[in-house]
Amino acid sequence: MLTLFYTPETCALATHIALEEAGADYTLRRIDFERQEQRSPGYLEVNPKGRVPALATPRGVLTETPALLGFVAQSFPAAQLAPVDDPFAFARLQDFNNYLCSTVHVAHAHRMRGHRWVDDEAAIEAMRRRVPQSVHDAFRVIEEGMLAGPWVMGEAYTVADPYLFTLARWLERDGVDPARLPRIAEHRRRMAERPAAQRALAAEA
Amino acid sequence: MLTLFYTPETCALATHIALEEAGADYTLRRIDFERQEQRSPGYLEVNPKGRVPALATPRGVLTETPALLGFVAQSFPAAQLAPVDDPFAFARLQDFNNYLCSTVHVAHAHRMRGHRWVDDEAAIEAMRRRVPQSVHDAFRVIEEGMLAGPWVMGEAYTVADPYLFTLARWLERDGVDPARLPRIAEHRRRMAERPAAQRALAAEA
Repeated sequence: MLTLFYTPETCALATHIALEEAGADYTLRRIDFERQEQRSPGYLEVNPKGRVPALATPRGVLTETPALLGFVAQSFPAAQLAPVDDPFAFARLQDFNNYLCSTVHVAHAHRMRGHRWVDDEAAIEAMRRRVPQSVHDAFRVIEEGMLAGPWVMGEAYTVADPYLFTLARWLERDGVDPARLPRIAEHRRRMAERPAAQRALAAEA
Repeated sequence: MLTLFYTPETCALATHIALEEAGADYTLRRIDFERQEQRSPGYLEVNPKGRVPALATPRGVLTETPALLGFVAQSFPAAQLAPVDDPFAFARLQDFNNYLCSTVHVAHAHRMRGHRWVDDEAAIEAMRRRVPQSVHDAFRVIEEGMLAGPWVMGEAYTVADPYLFTLARWLERDGVDPARLPRIAEHRRRMAERPAAQRALAAEA
């Protein structure tokens, strides 16, 4: 049995959708950011980094979205969520997901998590002002090349798709007009129609 | 044949060492940051993100260090650089490497790459001042739990080791005294003794 520790409107949604796509047997455990539950002793025992998502498995806890997505794909091969038997194709998928976690998500995080990298309020405000540009620039590389279409990797749906969907849902709040990224906006619409995405969003609502 | 596009003193060193450990047949291609070669039209054709490392393979270019390290480990299974047949253990390794790319490397990047996230000079300076603390905090989670010892994942040397080594080499320049992180400092010494690390560092010198 798997347990996904999540908070609504975070990147945990990507793993949540992937578990739904995989037909996995799992339970959800909500972590309340408003009560700072991610910093509670109980949760720090699960994930000392104090972040979501975390996935408790019979062998231990896993964290970091690209790792979780790879784990779900490899653990449920019948769902065909990644080219698990092809090192090059699997690395291309990891390449995409690592760009999301280390560049796209990081650009976004400067809007609400600036205190991670700076102390003074003026600098935090300066970071916020730049977010619409830096988030747009990070997504533009995807729009112009990395998104093969119709799905991220091409004809085959993979775990990269719920991850892109999850981060692209933040565009408006980051001050980016999705109309400037029409292929990503179209991918978001297509993802929103998938029953697995609808089930995960309903469970988090 | 593989070609590694690298720049000295960047995270490309991790993949470079992994290729040496794997006994891979590869060539090196240096990208000169001082001449802004990473932004040249020729290199942007290789990697539209304008960063290193990039690994050209017969099937196309791969980027992002955790993806490259996974690719090297899966492509050269005889070198036993990752538990490639165990989805949970492989995900734990990816978990570690993803933390390095999305948290540790990002904390470090605020020292020299602040312009990615902010425009004004005062805010860039404010970011620089915080780097010793945020880099230390990011490494402390590794020091206190994630580094199993003697190698990152325990008894088995994996591609996580050259990656930790690569980022830990920046500690002094980031204003962190390695003596505050004794287990990571000891790991760095052990890594520096490996012939593969010595060959890679000599080739980049």
